[in-house]
Amino acid sequence: MRTKFLLHLAAILIAISSNAQSDDSTSIKVLADEILSHGKAYDNLRYICKKIGPRLSGSVNAQKAVEATAKMLKEAGADTVYLQPCRVPHWERGAKETGYIQMAAGKKYNLNLCALGNSVGTGKSGITGAVVEVKSIEEIHQLGESVLDGKIVFINFTMDPTNINVFQSYGESGIGRWGAPTIAAKYGAVGAMVRSLAINPDDFPHTGVTAYNDSFPKIPAVAISTNDANWLSNQLKRKMMLTAFVQTNCQMLPDAPSFNVIGEVKGKEYPNEIITVGGHLDSWDLAEGAHDDGAGCVQSIEIIRALKATGIQPKRTIRAVMFMNEENGGRGARKYEELAELKGEKHVFALESDAGGFSPRTFSFENADVSFEKLNGWKKLFYPYGVYEFVKGHSGADIEPLKKLGTVLCALIPDTQRYFDIHHASTDTFETVSRRELHLGAVNMAALIYLVDKYGL
Amino acid sequence: MRTKFLLHLAAILIAISSNAQSDDSTSIKVLADEILSHGKAYDNLRYICKKIGPRLSGSVNAQKAVEATAKMLKEAGADTVYLQPCRVPHWERGAKETGYIQMAAGKKYNLNLCALGNSVGTGKSGITGAVVEVKSIEEIHQLGESVLDGKIVFINFTMDPTNINVFQSYGESGIGRWGAPTIAAKYGAVGAMVRSLAINPDDFPHTGVTAYNDSFPKIPAVAISTNDANWLSNQLKRKMMLTAFVQTNCQMLPDAPSFNVIGEVKGKEYPNEIITVGGHLDSWDLAEGAHDDGAGCVQSIEIIRALKATGIQPKRTIRAVMFMNEENGGRGARKYEELAELKGEKHVFALESDAGGFSPRTFSFENADVSFEKLNGWKKLFYPYGVYEFVKGHSGADIEPLKKLGTVLCALIPDTQRYFDIHHASTDTFETVSRRELHLGAVNMAALIYLVDKYGL
Repeated sequence: MRTKFLLHLAAILIAISSNAQSDDSTSIKVLADEILSHGKAYDNLRYICKKIGPRLSGSVNAQKAVEATAKMLKEAGADTVYLQPCRVPHWERGAKETGYIQMAAGKKYNLNLCALGNSVGTGKSGITGAVVEVKSIEEIHQLGESVLDGKIVFINFTMDPTNINVFQSYGESGIGRWGAPTIAAKYGAVGAMVRSLAINPDDFPHTGVTAYNDSFPKIPAVAISTNDANWLSNQLKRKMMLTAFVQTNCQMLPDAPSFNVIGEVKGKEYPNEIITVGGHLDSWDLAEGAHDDGAGCVQSIEIIRALKATGIQPKRTIRAVMFMNEENGGRGARKYEELAELKGEKHVFALESDAGGFSPRTFSFENADVSFEKLNGWKKLFYPYGVYEFVKGHSGADIEPLKKLGTVLCALIPDTQRYFDIHHASTDTFETVSRRELHLGAVNMAALIYLVDKYGL
Repeated sequence: MRTKFLLHLAAILIAISSNAQSDDSTSIKVLADEILSHGKAYDNLRYICKKIGPRLSGSVNAQKAVEATAKMLKEAGADTVYLQPCRVPHWERGAKETGYIQMAAGKKYNLNLCALGNSVGTGKSGITGAVVEVKSIEEIHQLGESVLDGKIVFINFTMDPTNINVFQSYGESGIGRWGAPTIAAKYGAVGAMVRSLAINPDDFPHTGVTAYNDSFPKIPAVAISTNDANWLSNQLKRKMMLTAFVQTNCQMLPDAPSFNVIGEVKGKEYPNEIITVGGHLDSWDLAEGAHDDGAGCVQSIEIIRALKATGIQPKRTIRAVMFMNEENGGRGARKYEELAELKGEKHVFALESDAGGFSPRTFSFENADVSFEKLNGWKKLFYPYGVYEFVKGHSGADIEPLKKLGTVLCALIPDTQRYFDIHHASTDTFETVSRRELHLGAVNMAALIYLVDKYGL
């Protein structure tokens, strides 16, 4: 009897669960159809990339982007739109950056280069030095002062082409850009030329921050294209000695005022429980910042628009956040968390899109040990929309400060095979974004927000 | 005792199976590393797109592509390279195609249009007619001769943007292009303007074949861009009557000689068992045919190259085939099957890549009822390389004739959200192809060929 009762109960629970999934599936399709048929993310992205363009923190364009996205959030139907002040680093590239390798008979091989973000400039006379190639941090330490003093260090760390997880390759080689120059400076190097963090051979230099250790001299650091890095490495194999000249006039100015941009839809049952969805508004100065991270911004705005357009009223407060200064400081992210803490806000979930506006594949959950099983139970609802994988892993730089508040964090991970062709380079343009891929990313984000809002975590 | 024995046996079998998978995983990684580090598919594609370009069947460029890919197959290390003669339709667009909508006050709205493949031309004086919009085949029949006689029919079948499976949308709306013009001709229409088979709003006309029913007059048929179709439909809602002018001078010439291009690696154990891997060499005359289907060709050549470069000697004969005339006739595919039948060849498996050179997601198996379980057992070996889904479904136009020989057929299905932005349009250029995505497709194809070759079906 008891067994029979339990079987009945199980059947009822399965039926309820199955009905719930079927209802959820219907609601998600309503959101998906709205976004795929009437989505504004692509048009908004065109505006940000083509009417504004590059928008590094502290720049006039960054402020234009603040105003433009606040307007977009209002047009999307957000109940409240406001700006959250934060001071940001203000680095400028300056008008001129050039460099070459001195070849025999007075000839020069001009390098495709750009200053690394936050780097000091070379001064008007530039820097000249013999080039020493290094392939690992260990090698820098091994060569030491006796070899590196007075030299321009050529940091040639390649991204592993055989690793399908391109972000892992980036993580492994990234130290060449953000860490290696200052270590070389410790041993007297006068400048650093860093192989661009790109997998494919091409002619575009890719910028990104380098970090200085205040104990060592700040030396000018530039990125050179992967083709130039390959060429230079081959030249160095043949010739004992090559001399490089580099001139940049980038500089770090005093911190500038800026803002995170926030738009909210108020929750009707638990308005004090906040679900954040965001991307970062600043981009590198070389790029339109279409994938990095205009995409994440317009997708987040689209969540607000789709909720309003479909009349889905959330239980919790949904907050779209355009974080400022992800690229060279992370000040917006820290300010967002600081104020959340100060106000005693309850942040239940945060979702970030900052891996490109490509076709969605994966959600990566962080700080989700308790709730992962629940989240994973929803996975099959995403399969029809291209996300087939829920993993525990890293989330994103702008939401990570919320970890200390106990917030469950999540990153949308799209197909990233194209990402390092455009990352931090002038090739990150609107034209490389597919409308459907961008909108499909927003569909999956909207679906996840919908489920977390409905069921809680 | 018996139970114990069976448990032992099961344990042994699991161990063997697990070792086999581990060996397979190692071999697949060898192939993958080779392709991702030293793959030539991208460079070969650049040559086909940029040094040759559009290559419709019967054209001078198609012949150049025959010669170029034969050379590539030799360089890839194929044991044998040969051409398989086939006669192909020879359609030419002609130099001039133009059209407009006559507006008030003598003004014209110029249309972004192109003749549909295999269409007749309009003659020098063009055609003029009142425009009648139809949204379904049923509507054409309903309007009939009383409405359509003497008119230019505007076939405005939209591709469903809410369908994630874009090929399904293409299948549903495709009749607007290949079937509807000739049905309208039955009722006296003098010309057809077909909404391009594209999902997004843009200004590019997308060509593709239209088919004539010999019982009805052959009327000129053109594609117009989706933006123009939206504009025209809106205009027709406001005005009772609009007149269009269309002029094309395309024509069908006598059949021309051409070839399938074939390169083989001989099997060492079962040389008479053939595994085919292919794409189609012809492209539409408007496009570089990068995704459609230069990608499938260079990926197939890459399989040969990777086998040779890694020293993996197949048991069965691996044959890379560049099929001719997929776009407007399918003659190469039929010739390939005819000759296979004539020679009594044993075709165990055929794999086609003709859905774009995008990141791989799925293998679709046809004629595989018996072997699907075995194939599906290999699925987890593909997960690290991006393919996560094995389905039973359609394979591809060029290998489908082999179905009657009992061959198990398969298509590589990559992420296709971008596909209909470029399909059959001038936007199908080399620049839209990602090197890593293209090569990752070849990795998965190589892995599948490796497994089928090793274990049979």
